[in-house]
Amino acid sequence: MKAHRCATFVLVGLSLASNAAFAQESLRAKVEAWTAANQRAIVTEFLDLLAIPNVAADRANIEKNASMLKVMLVKRGFKAELLATEGNPLVWGERLVPGATKTVLIYCQFDGQPVSPKGWAQPDPFVPFVRTGRVDEGGQEVKDVRSLTKFDDSWRVYARSAADSKSPIIAFMAALDALKAIGLPPTVNLRVIMDGEEELSSPNLVPAIAKHRDKLTADVMLVFDGPMHYTDQPTVVFGARGIQTAQLTVYGPKSGVHSGNYGNWIPNPALRLAHLLASMKDDHGNVLVKGFYDDLVPLTQEEKDMLAAIPSDDAKLLKTFGVAKPERDDVSLQQAFQRPTLNIRGMQSAFIGDGARTIIPDRAVAEIDMRLVKETKGGTMLDRLRAHVAAQGYHIVSEDPDDATRAKYTHIAKITSPRREPTAAFRTSPLLPESRRVIAALENVWGEPPVRIRTAGGTVPISQFIDALGFPAMLVPIVNFDNNQHEENENVKLGALFKGIVTYAAVLRQ
Amino acid sequence: MKAHRCATFVLVGLSLASNAAFAQESLRAKVEAWTAANQRAIVTEFLDLLAIPNVAADRANIEKNASMLKVMLVKRGFKAELLATEGNPLVWGERLVPGATKTVLIYCQFDGQPVSPKGWAQPDPFVPFVRTGRVDEGGQEVKDVRSLTKFDDSWRVYARSAADSKSPIIAFMAALDALKAIGLPPTVNLRVIMDGEEELSSPNLVPAIAKHRDKLTADVMLVFDGPMHYTDQPTVVFGARGIQTAQLTVYGPKSGVHSGNYGNWIPNPALRLAHLLASMKDDHGNVLVKGFYDDLVPLTQEEKDMLAAIPSDDAKLLKTFGVAKPERDDVSLQQAFQRPTLNIRGMQSAFIGDGARTIIPDRAVAEIDMRLVKETKGGTMLDRLRAHVAAQGYHIVSEDPDDATRAKYTHIAKITSPRREPTAAFRTSPLLPESRRVIAALENVWGEPPVRIRTAGGTVPISQFIDALGFPAMLVPIVNFDNNQHEENENVKLGALFKGIVTYAAVLRQ
Repeated sequence: MKAHRCATFVLVGLSLASNAAFAQESLRAKVEAWTAANQRAIVTEFLDLLAIPNVAADRANIEKNASMLKVMLVKRGFKAELLATEGNPLVWGERLVPGATKTVLIYCQFDGQPVSPKGWAQPDPFVPFVRTGRVDEGGQEVKDVRSLTKFDDSWRVYARSAADSKSPIIAFMAALDALKAIGLPPTVNLRVIMDGEEELSSPNLVPAIAKHRDKLTADVMLVFDGPMHYTDQPTVVFGARGIQTAQLTVYGPKSGVHSGNYGNWIPNPALRLAHLLASMKDDHGNVLVKGFYDDLVPLTQEEKDMLAAIPSDDAKLLKTFGVAKPERDDVSLQQAFQRPTLNIRGMQSAFIGDGARTIIPDRAVAEIDMRLVKETKGGTMLDRLRAHVAAQGYHIVSEDPDDATRAKYTHIAKITSPRREPTAAFRTSPLLPESRRVIAALENVWGEPPVRIRTAGGTVPISQFIDALGFPAMLVPIVNFDNNQHEENENVKLGALFKGIVTYAAVLRQ
Repeated sequence: MKAHRCATFVLVGLSLASNAAFAQESLRAKVEAWTAANQRAIVTEFLDLLAIPNVAADRANIEKNASMLKVMLVKRGFKAELLATEGNPLVWGERLVPGATKTVLIYCQFDGQPVSPKGWAQPDPFVPFVRTGRVDEGGQEVKDVRSLTKFDDSWRVYARSAADSKSPIIAFMAALDALKAIGLPPTVNLRVIMDGEEELSSPNLVPAIAKHRDKLTADVMLVFDGPMHYTDQPTVVFGARGIQTAQLTVYGPKSGVHSGNYGNWIPNPALRLAHLLASMKDDHGNVLVKGFYDDLVPLTQEEKDMLAAIPSDDAKLLKTFGVAKPERDDVSLQQAFQRPTLNIRGMQSAFIGDGARTIIPDRAVAEIDMRLVKETKGGTMLDRLRAHVAAQGYHIVSEDPDDATRAKYTHIAKITSPRREPTAAFRTSPLLPESRRVIAALENVWGEPPVRIRTAGGTVPISQFIDALGFPAMLVPIVNFDNNQHEENENVKLGALFKGIVTYAAVLRQ
């Protein structure tokens, strides 16, 4: 913990006046007191919101969610409207603060992953269940929740989107209510954009910018989404990797041939794919594709310190996954996120197990994903991959080869990319004034610096929107790490929701 | 053609007296004349036999087949009985020839592959259809076949086991009838063993030797099964490769992990499998497993000449399969059969296509088959494969690794062999007197040497039986190459069946 404080001190430096810290500590106490007194109202609004199914394809219910969200915003003094798109409507709101010089755009997501009720411990993922703990650790149902006035921090609300991502919306609304009640209004102008197609990769978010640029302009975007660091400490995420996928097919005979009748003679595409994949990356974690790491910029000492300050227990993770050593001995998980990846996410040639037949298969396919960092662009990386395959002696096609092509080339590979465009990485410098203000707000209110993630390993669709908006953005997540996001039994800890109200209040008072 | 004659001359040499050739030529004319006059009886017996379903698992019908075969043998002067086994009965017969000094054991198969009527052009694969040609080339149904007395050579009988392998049984019976009718009885003692479980890999054939050794003893075994060379020339097959399969599993994390959240850090088992497979065989057809080719004995010039004499059109095959070049430029298909193979018959890690997910998979599996030649034994080859994997730094397990094993070893591979024992290769020298007699019989009756296959590329279950019997064996196939064996629309050309009667008559008069 001390190490983290020191590192933050370097980052936040002398801008942190002690009276600000005192004011924020007082803020925390006041918001916590208000929250304790208003748990029933907070939880009730949360349960009401969760009870409206929100799968993006379910347009009627999505519109009910949007209407409720609009009402919730209006109730908090926002000018609000629904912005029509080619898909689901966006919920937009604006609340200007007299005298404020800065504008914050807050992004929330209100759609959720599709549900298959079968795996859930409750009958309906859209009928929220409150439990005394994790259902898989024996958490019991709390009955008559709407009649209670006190809720334990360890209790959990189980429902689709309980964590991803209706609880941040509730925490945000409650933070506004708390600030009003304690007479400490937001210090910044607020704009809000709520997305009903995040789980579809937000296809209508970027197009909305062209039509509504003036409604979305701000100095910084804060994304109220995602889980906190796995220690459940307050967290700010300054970046996420992008992704570029590719499907690689190596061709053998036109159809599978008998491995006895043609073995040692007809080339085997699975072996060829093995050679090709092995040529792309060695067994020590180094991608051998020419130029793969060329665009990277070395980390500064400050950036390295920030990575080192992130709490981590890599040994425990390895044990959890049953892996003796990571790909590279000398690289921590956080360091691993700072570079692009080349990953084989799937591979197949003919069949294994009971379906196996003694044949030389007709083709072998690898599904590849490359995680991108800010400096590495999907298109460029795909070009490099193509050039690598060509350099191994392959003729590259974009469709299954015809007879003439087959007769001409000994080695034929198809490379296709199923995504029309890659999802880019995003990264906001934590040294920007906008970043420092958020870090300081969290440090002041909680008495210790937030976990500052330079780059999350995964990819967020919001990257495209961030890229297109052109101003700094960061994620301020509040939900517990063990929330079963996207899975059965998705849940949020009520303690995390209540802490989130403090976090968002601090951010609104930055 | 001339090249083949020359090569045969070397092989058969001066043992071929011209009066023998004359006698055989006369034999051909007589058997052909008898066959022409008796087509109706031959075809009727064939249709009757095909009309009894013969899937090995269908015990009731298998017994009907066995009973009919016993009757057919008795009718030809055989002492015949059914030999009980733990599975389906074997049909055995014996016909001793006064004064004969040699005994020939003839092997036939009477069970057939399971059928799925859906893909067939006729309603029931066990209700034979006669067509004027291949059904996929517009062959039309020949009506009222049982009332005809003349059948065109180009007509085909469509039914399960029409080719594999009831037509050799019919040709054999007809040959006996013909020889009787023309007053030229067999010159050798005959023993017959008919197998009703060939498509199950003949599990009860080798055990039968222990109980019935005296009934099975002979100087040579002739296997009346399989298709002729693809030129449809008379063929003798002196060997077949064996097979040893293995399943290779390389382990990653205990369960698939997110390729973003852990990419560049948790090792990818598909990449590791690719490296491992690539280390086993280069892209020029050379297996790199230590000792893989050690047991091979160089071919003699005579053996090389025999290979060269086999009619072949490798370029046409490559075109058919849509492959520009074979694995090795300098090796013909027949040469390729003389060496063991290491083939990847299936490979999988997670999923491809619509099922692909952005994960680091938990494992990657390759199904391997090694085709064996006479000198390379399955167990030894499997040991060499294991040693190779170990030499690449892998800890080898036989079950999925437990936590302690996972914590200890960075590289873990499982190697299992689903077959209890490999099927060995067999090979009979074509230079043996028994081989020369069969070759000479076919050359004399047809006026040109048969195609002599040193080693078929594939594997035949009969290998085990040949191995256990301990005397020379060879296959004398008679059915057309394009017979859709094991598939829908299995068929035999009537011309091939009629020619087969001459071939078998010659063999019985060797």
